[in-house]
Amino acid sequence: MHEVLKKHICKFTLISDEDFNAMKHYFKIIKVNKKENLLLEGNICKQHFFVSKGCLRKFFINDKGVEQTTEFAIENWWITDNIAFEHGLATSFYIQAVENSEILVLDRNAQEKLLEQFPKMERYFRFIYQRAYAASQMRIKYLYDFTKEEFYEHLCKNHPEFVQRIPQYLIASFLGFSPEYLSEIRKKKRS
Amino acid sequence: MHEVLKKHICKFTLISDEDFNAMKHYFKIIKVNKKENLLLEGNICKQHFFVSKGCLRKFFINDKGVEQTTEFAIENWWITDNIAFEHGLATSFYIQAVENSEILVLDRNAQEKLLEQFPKMERYFRFIYQRAYAASQMRIKYLYDFTKEEFYEHLCKNHPEFVQRIPQYLIASFLGFSPEYLSEIRKKKRS
Repeated sequence: MHEVLKKHICKFTLISDEDFNAMKHYFKIIKVNKKENLLLEGNICKQHFFVSKGCLRKFFINDKGVEQTTEFAIENWWITDNIAFEHGLATSFYIQAVENSEILVLDRNAQEKLLEQFPKMERYFRFIYQRAYAASQMRIKYLYDFTKEEFYEHLCKNHPEFVQRIPQYLIASFLGFSPEYLSEIRKKKRS
Repeated sequence: MHEVLKKHICKFTLISDEDFNAMKHYFKIIKVNKKENLLLEGNICKQHFFVSKGCLRKFFINDKGVEQTTEFAIENWWITDNIAFEHGLATSFYIQAVENSEILVLDRNAQEKLLEQFPKMERYFRFIYQRAYAASQMRIKYLYDFTKEEFYEHLCKNHPEFVQRIPQYLIASFLGFSPEYLSEIRKKKRS
C-alpha cells in the first residue's frame, strides 16, 4: 500500500528507497468499509488521509439536516479539513468512505516530524497544496458562474471517472440538488 | 518593499540576510494605480503577485457581462490564477488594483529557479498554498451553506478589515449581488 504513496511522491521529488523506508513508520495503514466514518463533526481534526485505494468524501450537515458533499478523494488524493488540521481545531465536516478503501493516515504531529526529518517532503506537500488550491479556485469560479445543470455537464465532460464511479445520490449531494432532480436532468440529457 | 516579504517569509522559515539578499533579484517591484490591470482574460498567466502595500482583486466577466470578484489580496497575500500559472495557460480571470499598490512580481521561471536555489523556500510556499487552500475549502462550504445575506454577515463579523477598506460595489461583486441589493441589506442591518 505504501508503494502507491511512494510512486506519487516520486512524481514531485526524488526520494531514495532508504529515505522512503525510514519515513514509512509515520504513516498508519487502515482499511475502511463503505459508509464508515473517518472524521465526525465536532471531533478535533488530527489526521490527514491519503487514499491508496478506494474513495472518500467530505460533507457537512446543513440547517435542513441534509448532507452536503463538498469534496471527493480517489486514489492519490489527500483529504482532511485543512483549517482544523493545521490548528488542531474541532471540525464542522464529516469524512466518510464511499467505497471499501485503503488509507494511509498521517497524524498532525507525524506530518510535522516527517517534514522536519525529510525537508524534501516540503516540496511534495507544496505541490499537493498548490494543486489542490488551484482546483478549489476553479471550483469557486464554477459555483459563481455555472447553473447546477451546467456544473453537472462540466463534471460529466471533465471528470467522467467521478460520475461513473460515484453513486448518483452522492453526485447530487456534491452538486447541491436532490437525487430526484439529478435523475430528471439525466433523463433530459438522454432524450 | 522587500522588507515586507522578508518579514513574511521569516514567519514560516528561517532565512539569513545573505540568502535573502541573494534571492531579491528574482522579484520585480512594481507600483500600480487603482483600477490598473495586472492580468487580463486570455493572457498567458506567467506571474505570481505578492502585495507589499495596497489591495488587488481577481474577477471574471460572466455571460451577462457582469464582473464577478472571486478573491481579494491585501498586504502579505499572494495572488494569481494558480492553475494557469502552474501550467503556463491562458487565464479566464482579470487581476486589478483596488487601491494604489506596491507589488512584488515573481515570474513563473523565476519561482522555479528560486525554489531550486533555495529549497528552504519550499517550506514557505508550502505554508502559503496550505493556508490558501484551507481558506478556499471553507469558502466553498459557505457558498453552499450560507444565503447571500448570511455570507455578508459572516464577512462583517470575521473580516471587518475587508468590509471597511474595500468599496461597497466590490464587496457586492464578491458576494454575487448588485450594489443596490447590498445597500438594502445594510439599511436593514442598521434599522
